[in-house]
Amino acid sequence: MGRIITLLTDFGLKDPWAGAMKGVLLSINPGANVVDISHLVSPHNIAEGSFILSQAYPFFPKGTIHVAVVDPGVGGKRRPVLIEAGRHFFIGPDNGIFTPVLENERVKRVIHITNRKYFLREVSSTFHGRDVFAPCAAHLSRGVPPLYFGRPVENPVSLNLDRPGKKPLSITGTVLYVDSFGNLITSISKRDISGLLKKGRVEIRIKGRRVGGLKSSYSEGEGAPFALVGSGGQVEIACRQKRAADVIGASCGDKVEARAVI
Amino acid sequence: MGRIITLLTDFGLKDPWAGAMKGVLLSINPGANVVDISHLVSPHNIAEGSFILSQAYPFFPKGTIHVAVVDPGVGGKRRPVLIEAGRHFFIGPDNGIFTPVLENERVKRVIHITNRKYFLREVSSTFHGRDVFAPCAAHLSRGVPPLYFGRPVENPVSLNLDRPGKKPLSITGTVLYVDSFGNLITSISKRDISGLLKKGRVEIRIKGRRVGGLKSSYSEGEGAPFALVGSGGQVEIACRQKRAADVIGASCGDKVEARAVI
Amino acid sequence: MGRIITLLTDFGLKDPWAGAMKGVLLSINPGANVVDISHLVSPHNIAEGSFILSQAYPFFPKGTIHVAVVDPGVGGKRRPVLIEAGRHFFIGPDNGIFTPVLENERVKRVIHITNRKYFLREVSSTFHGRDVFAPCAAHLSRGVPPLYFGRPVENPVSLNLDRPGKKPLSITGTVLYVDSFGNLITSISKRDISGLLKKGRVEIRIKGRRVGGLKSSYSEGEGAPFALVGSGGQVEIACRQKRAADVIGASCGDKVEARAVI
Repeated sequence: MGRIITLLTDFGLKDPWAGAMKGVLLSINPGANVVDISHLVSPHNIAEGSFILSQAYPFFPKGTIHVAVVDPGVGGKRRPVLIEAGRHFFIGPDNGIFTPVLENERVKRVIHITNRKYFLREVSSTFHGRDVFAPCAAHLSRGVPPLYFGRPVENPVSLNLDRPGKKPLSITGTVLYVDSFGNLITSISKRDISGLLKKGRVEIRIKGRRVGGLKSSYSEGEGAPFALVGSGGQVEIACRQKRAADVIGASCGDKVEARAVI
Repeated sequence: MGRIITLLTDFGLKDPWAGAMKGVLLSINPGANVVDISHLVSPHNIAEGSFILSQAYPFFPKGTIHVAVVDPGVGGKRRPVLIEAGRHFFIGPDNGIFTPVLENERVKRVIHITNRKYFLREVSSTFHGRDVFAPCAAHLSRGVPPLYFGRPVENPVSLNLDRPGKKPLSITGTVLYVDSFGNLITSISKRDISGLLKKGRVEIRIKGRRVGGLKSSYSEGEGAPFALVGSGGQVEIACRQKRAADVIGASCGDKVEARAVI
Repeated sequence: MGRIITLLTDFGLKDPWAGAMKGVLLSINPGANVVDISHLVSPHNIAEGSFILSQAYPFFPKGTIHVAVVDPGVGGKRRPVLIEAGRHFFIGPDNGIFTPVLENERVKRVIHITNRKYFLREVSSTFHGRDVFAPCAAHLSRGVPPLYFGRPVENPVSLNLDRPGKKPLSITGTVLYVDSFGNLITSISKRDISGLLKKGRVEIRIKGRRVGGLKSSYSEGEGAPFALVGSGGQVEIACRQKRAADVIGASCGDKVEARAVI
């Protein structure tokens, strides 16, 4: 089995675009192992794409090439980049989609991809996933050295992520993502909560409502929303066999407060 | 090409969870061939997941490892299991998801997975698909013997499936599944129908309505709902180029009666 | 890595049908590399399926086998076919799904598949994707010569595609496809437009509305719908970060006019 190349896009699963990218990848490297992470990022939602990527990429083996194409600026001035960080490679537009990588990994190099030798012969102005990113990923997977694709740059784009606001007895975060079960994944981390727990019992509030918790698994709750530390290490608000997002009426961006009650 | 590992989950296709499982599988066994059966099982619907699995797994080659994660009890007391049955292996929660396997295959062993050596180092209480089932499947695919994962148990959980009620001249079954074309797949088998056909013409009723049939293909009907024996060997109610489920107003669990008219 | 086999169907992504096809493919050729193009073709929509196929297949490497199953006539009189055209093979029902292949590629042979030796032992009348097309594709991928599957035929079925109506100063086409971003892809080609551009400025109208353009990328527009030449070489109507289809109220089949203003 050859080198792994993952795909994350907002192309949806009906359209031919993800299929065309796979065709390009396999035309250049027939031995590539192409793995879908998600093609259902909300159209143009870079922050959401970066969150989804952040929860999946760390589990792939050393040397995996992650291609992420949420690219509302395609054909404009945003740069195509190749990032070497941690144990992996990342290819896509320099628009913030790789923010969690830049924050969490040791970044070795960010290369501004400019060498047209590794693009498709005809490059459209609307589909760089197929014409630029896929062919570069395939050539990289065949052993082309990163520096052949272009020159290193120093200032890759990062999103302004909402950081939890921390006070001695409370932390205010936001809902980062609502998953398909309706669980609300927040920006408050396990570490944040551990700090509060040293001071007292922790209460969690969202939309003016106090939720139960911290429980330790989804199967513990009793029908009312409760908090737990989810599998990505973030505080999550769930509801046993129901969609917490619907029960609470909460969605992405809503404020969440964790408070130590002494 | 390495060993085949299939995935069936209720994780949806947008979220990063299926991608994370694939990363774990390929990190442990880079030669695994990971194949999606479905990630769109209705959330927590074990019966639906078991039906979807039952229609796909028999077509995979000998030695295939099927990982099925519809797991509302994750983190609770339900056991993780590894089942050797027929020509295949099955890994997932012991909650009834493997009922069709236990009913239709010669079961060689059911092993209660307990050996943490084959789990991820950190096991969350909310995502055993990634932390327990995927790594065990990957190790199994690399040749770890089944008994290394834990001890055999005798009483795997089975769902109480609705069995068709059989009388001399009639059979009462239920709708097991509505497929994406709106076809209603029932619990009445080809064999059940053959028995009735020996006694007379067969009439099929659902929701107080008599449907035509038995036709032999979808292209025969004329716009009204009709019955036929579907590709899984079950009686199915279809409607040419329409959704029988919508035309009839029927859904999963509805009663269906087949009656021999002498 | 073995031979590539792509899949395009209207089976959806929840049901077990695509999974069953993959099981059959890998049972016959464990070395096949099975790649999904799309399983979300609208049910029975042959024209839509042929469009999606047309935008993805050209990017796959020489020798790729494309299996396309949008097959409302399954079990009826339509023929199963194997087409050798251009650098690829195509397997599916002879119902027009391969129209773009027949129009755009040098067709070497169209074979009416009849040799049951290469089918599954039991062939249902409702699921030839699993019982006929997948096993034939797998055998072909293992090197069975095309003529072993049946005899050449001369008259494969083509859809009556709407051809743009051309006048000296205008072209009238239709919307062929609405993609997941709401972009309207039309039957008017880059070449058609180039012809008009030699005569003057080009205005594009749809639904009685004049749209801006031609722009060269999605990131140029300012909130109002505009036209550009898309990545498939067709005129497309888009709207920056909005769904042009919704803004305009247009859908598949709607008329589009390009006119040279002298």
